[in-house]
Amino acid sequence: MKKAFLSIIFSLFAIMVFADDGSRLWLKYDLIKDQKQKLSYIKFSKFIAGNTENPTLQKAAEELQSGFAGLLGTKTIISPKSTSLSGGIILEVSNNQSLTQSLNEDGFAIFARNGNIVISSKSAVGVLYGAFELLRNIQTLQAIGQNIVSNPRVKIRMLNHWDNANGTVERGYAGSSMWKWNELPFRIDPRYVAYARANAAIGINATSINNVNASSRFLTAEYLEKIKAVADVLRPYGIRVFISVNFRSPRTLGGLKTSDPLDPEVRKWWNEKTKEIHQYIPDFGGYLVKANSEGEPGPQDYGRTHADGANMLAEAMKPFSGIVIWRAFVYNADPNGDRFKEAFEQFKPLDGKFDEKVIVQVKNGPIDFMPREPFHPMFGGFSNTKLAMEFQITQEYLGQSTHLTYLAPMFKECLDTDTYAKGKGSTVAKVIDGSLYNSQVSLMAGVANTGSDANWCGHPFNQANWYAFGRLAWDNTLSSEKIAKEWIGMALTNDEKAKVQINEMMQKSLPTYISYTYPLGLSHMMGEGHHYGPEPWLTKAARPDWTSIYYHRADSIGLGFDRTGKMSNALNLYTKEVREMWGNPDKCDLNYLMWFHHIAWNKKLSTGNTLWEELCYRYYNGVVEVQKLQKDWTNLKPYIDTETFGSVSARLKIQEKEAIWWRDACVLYFQEFAKTPIPSSLTPPNRNLEEVKKLVEIYHLR
Amino acid sequence: MKKAFLSIIFSLFAIMVFADDGSRLWLKYDLIKDQKQKLSYIKFSKFIAGNTENPTLQKAAEELQSGFAGLLGTKTIISPKSTSLSGGIILEVSNNQSLTQSLNEDGFAIFARNGNIVISSKSAVGVLYGAFELLRNIQTLQAIGQNIVSNPRVKIRMLNHWDNANGTVERGYAGSSMWKWNELPFRIDPRYVAYARANAAIGINATSINNVNASSRFLTAEYLEKIKAVADVLRPYGIRVFISVNFRSPRTLGGLKTSDPLDPEVRKWWNEKTKEIHQYIPDFGGYLVKANSEGEPGPQDYGRTHADGANMLAEAMKPFSGIVIWRAFVYNADPNGDRFKEAFEQFKPLDGKFDEKVIVQVKNGPIDFMPREPFHPMFGGFSNTKLAMEFQITQEYLGQSTHLTYLAPMFKECLDTDTYAKGKGSTVAKVIDGSLYNSQVSLMAGVANTGSDANWCGHPFNQANWYAFGRLAWDNTLSSEKIAKEWIGMALTNDEKAKVQINEMMQKSLPTYISYTYPLGLSHMMGEGHHYGPEPWLTKAARPDWTSIYYHRADSIGLGFDRTGKMSNALNLYTKEVREMWGNPDKCDLNYLMWFHHIAWNKKLSTGNTLWEELCYRYYNGVVEVQKLQKDWTNLKPYIDTETFGSVSARLKIQEKEAIWWRDACVLYFQEFAKTPIPSSLTPPNRNLEEVKKLVEIYHLR
Repeated sequence: MKKAFLSIIFSLFAIMVFADDGSRLWLKYDLIKDQKQKLSYIKFSKFIAGNTENPTLQKAAEELQSGFAGLLGTKTIISPKSTSLSGGIILEVSNNQSLTQSLNEDGFAIFARNGNIVISSKSAVGVLYGAFELLRNIQTLQAIGQNIVSNPRVKIRMLNHWDNANGTVERGYAGSSMWKWNELPFRIDPRYVAYARANAAIGINATSINNVNASSRFLTAEYLEKIKAVADVLRPYGIRVFISVNFRSPRTLGGLKTSDPLDPEVRKWWNEKTKEIHQYIPDFGGYLVKANSEGEPGPQDYGRTHADGANMLAEAMKPFSGIVIWRAFVYNADPNGDRFKEAFEQFKPLDGKFDEKVIVQVKNGPIDFMPREPFHPMFGGFSNTKLAMEFQITQEYLGQSTHLTYLAPMFKECLDTDTYAKGKGSTVAKVIDGSLYNSQVSLMAGVANTGSDANWCGHPFNQANWYAFGRLAWDNTLSSEKIAKEWIGMALTNDEKAKVQINEMMQKSLPTYISYTYPLGLSHMMGEGHHYGPEPWLTKAARPDWTSIYYHRADSIGLGFDRTGKMSNALNLYTKEVREMWGNPDKCDLNYLMWFHHIAWNKKLSTGNTLWEELCYRYYNGVVEVQKLQKDWTNLKPYIDTETFGSVSARLKIQEKEAIWWRDACVLYFQEFAKTPIPSSLTPPNRNLEEVKKLVEIYHLR
Repeated sequence: MKKAFLSIIFSLFAIMVFADDGSRLWLKYDLIKDQKQKLSYIKFSKFIAGNTENPTLQKAAEELQSGFAGLLGTKTIISPKSTSLSGGIILEVSNNQSLTQSLNEDGFAIFARNGNIVISSKSAVGVLYGAFELLRNIQTLQAIGQNIVSNPRVKIRMLNHWDNANGTVERGYAGSSMWKWNELPFRIDPRYVAYARANAAIGINATSINNVNASSRFLTAEYLEKIKAVADVLRPYGIRVFISVNFRSPRTLGGLKTSDPLDPEVRKWWNEKTKEIHQYIPDFGGYLVKANSEGEPGPQDYGRTHADGANMLAEAMKPFSGIVIWRAFVYNADPNGDRFKEAFEQFKPLDGKFDEKVIVQVKNGPIDFMPREPFHPMFGGFSNTKLAMEFQITQEYLGQSTHLTYLAPMFKECLDTDTYAKGKGSTVAKVIDGSLYNSQVSLMAGVANTGSDANWCGHPFNQANWYAFGRLAWDNTLSSEKIAKEWIGMALTNDEKAKVQINEMMQKSLPTYISYTYPLGLSHMMGEGHHYGPEPWLTKAARPDWTSIYYHRADSIGLGFDRTGKMSNALNLYTKEVREMWGNPDKCDLNYLMWFHHIAWNKKLSTGNTLWEELCYRYYNGVVEVQKLQKDWTNLKPYIDTETFGSVSARLKIQEKEAIWWRDACVLYFQEFAKTPIPSSLTPPNRNLEEVKKLVEIYHLR
């Protein structure tokens, strides 16, 4: 072992790799350099005691052991029994009321007792979360030993993988799927364990393993055996597996003539299939369903409602602990309609009609994961339906794997917005975490950005969005700065000055991205299909609501989608207070302006600039801000490992190039309507619109 | 640096990774354990001297330096000047006739001189190849210092990547594309360098970077800049870049009304495009073209011939050193034809009509990379056309990433077959390497099996096929045993006993695979589209020649495709000697029987069994052989790192399951025609044909 290990060391020297490939995510456990700080932790590293017959406590103990070995350089023993020694870590699942009255099921407390640090919870998985909290505090050089009490606000904290059976990932930008279906159930890729650890470290406790545009494959015995193997790996880490299902499965797999949810044979098929799944996965999490959306089958194919479909699956799930997650992402192709309103209007008559096992999963905004959207009007508008939040971690419209875009501020902006549904303080967060309507089930899902790339997420900074999603699902009151600070310390550097600088870069990154892509509340102007690069001139597509002009509504008069009345009146879906916030074009936050108003090109905005000027300034300023990010990053070289530094440096160059691309495309295109020169303080693009269009066409070539 | 390195070491301890992820391929450079052997190498590790102003010699020196550091634990200096010292390595590009008369351009000599080891060649890249040869000898614990002279037999030794612009890989089974187009030209993934080193180590000097089902994207300035960045990385390693082109590009990119190769505007477009490419890549290797095949555009769209198309591109390439590679993989959808003959017949009238810059690339067999095919009748049948060999390294029909299948015996079987084109000894190898027709250009291409997976190739043993391809392109006289021995020593273990056992496993692997999939010369019965698993009953497809029944021709009388006369007479494309070898069903090698004959189910074969019995025995025996491979591998545990051992063990379980799948599918299906019980010594399948069909259908679900 030692010799072989030495040979690894030598070969590392040999190929002169001194670089971090990012594969360890936020669990790097590199040796702490600050001797004093390290000694303060070593004091508690004599042993780890806990009932390691429990597989989850065993994982907690192993994690602490390997964390201590890396961070502190100690060899800490694991003791399966309680101990009277001091200087160690005690893991305990406790029923002691005085201890646990402040805790919910997954919550944990950390405190000092008799010279030890105790991690206590009602549940084993709570202890595991506490162990990761302790490690995080050590990784980020915080003091340990003081009292910590932490409870998750949302019950189901979930990743949605849009991974296909053939190994591709819909909207994945980091290689192919991390799930190797052809190798399962026999081969357990070591990355499954790494994935489980990374998720448990941020409190994620659920994962749907396949694309919502779902293959029926995943419901066959052949595949259930494979999924079982994955579930067995994830279980000790507290993660339950969900399956995205194809609503047509009773026909496809069962050979039935229909998939009508009210057909007794269909109901029977789902009942039996659900029982069968539980034979493989006793703690099966449940179904995730995309139905009657973008061509997917659903209950409407048979004249039934979403509630009919969801409740049928809920009935099948009744004997078990799992749930049914039904997506609200539905919209019909109507050139005269407003996609903004469709989910609301389709689901409103069903409010109160869903089984208690059903939770309706709503995207954060009414369109589709745009860089900035107003919160979805269903939040606060549905008092008799459990609603879950669906965020997109993978950056389909947010720079994919080449733009630095830290998403916590976006998640936070949505969660913190007040719906006023039950008066002031009725934030989206409170709808989601169940506190507004006193719901016992709550769910926050993030569309995963994981792939087979060594560093999991493509852009090194994309890891931070996975991390931030998990942390916010646990505690939506955390600030995006605090989350970034944690992640930087674990993943990049613990140098205090560097941490502050990187944090500033991250906080600036989203406004910067929005500035050169979708300023002033613009949306949905990306390259058709692949969603890469700008294409504001997209006029024809398979559906009117897949064009760009449907959204920006540029004309000779002005720009923006008037949702105040007349054609759409989508604003009316919100409470009075929200309507007042966004409904008056003179008072509306400029960041949301184009979402709700069609504004004349020459209208003076609150900034003192006309719309056209403001638009140009923002597009241009976005590029300048990218150049500042480049400069900031260059200064950070001494603090970052070579591979990560080089990767981010190169990606910032790509980002600059593409920011200019977006800027030129949008400014030149809108100028055709505004018919106004670019403000004289700005240098006009050195290419014309035709040239930019040609560049975009390249990305449409097969 | 040191501290940070230590932290890597500690973190390696911490996460308890003691495993080899396979990313280093055959360049592991782990410390040699045999002290005596190591000392015999250290004697020559004092310095490396050579003109390091030459970038390729610089790479050779660096490779030796890092190889020595890893293998020997030495810190060897690189000296840019000649030296009078002894105990080192001298790298020299030499014009000394007595030295170099035995060498061709890329060849090298290694010999001892004045207490040093000299690596000498006419070219810098020859020295680089010599450096890798020296390292290989050290890696595999051979004596060094004795004279070695080595010359490549084929001039262009090439990988063909079927990688798409969108990051997928056609017929790729190891993640997504290794080329990160969205990151280029700015980010140079460290894997590009690793790829260059691994290829140079086996003499590969050419790579086409995109799928032959080609996107025009790769000819745009946007992408040429990206390709240039790749070419710049590969150049010092002696690797030239080729581009697969879409024949319709003059229309798609140039805006022309036609892509007719005889149209002056089209010719002008290609001339200018070719010039433009050379501004980015001065040593551009050339074009690779799939035309008028499987829906791809080509000269026949305009009533022109393959020669017209190829010669137009050759004209564009005339001012430059590159070539045009034109694929012969063409076949029309004709239910009454024989695909076996189509390429031959389409190209025969063009023999002698291709420009001297054109080389026609022919797959090893007449159909499509089946596990065993007779050699393509074009080899030996075209005396006035330069022909290149196209092998498939990626295992589309050979177990993809889950079956252990070492392909060198297949490559060898094809290369060593005698075409008798110019009398006895006119092997396929001699057609390919140019010696039979005294050609100055020669080319062997392998369709790459590389992907973004950490270990590059999926199955750890698939790496051996990439390795074997390169070695055989360099020297087609190497035995598959010698190549396997080299690879095992570099990639798995140098334990002598283990090496022998693994080599035996590898040699048995292909006959084993063929036995449970395509015994007796059967072919093309795989799952439709994805080509995974068995589907001998496939009767209808988009084209008749994409079904299975087109190939196996099972009926109540017997099995196999009669190519002796009447309907096909494809055998007539071969020389008399070959016709005699395969034309008589009583003398034909059983491994090729079904390729040429329709044999009655009850006919007694040379084995003494009827066809039906022999078929069953072979299918069953294939499964038994897989089980033996499992057992053999289990015994090798002490010699193999944990991750590789576990990965192969698990894959052998999958292989066993799938071998039974193939066996049951084929035996049950053919039994419907043979109407004969399975021989009593065999246990009949424990499922029926309908059940197996259902299993296969799963893999057709989206």
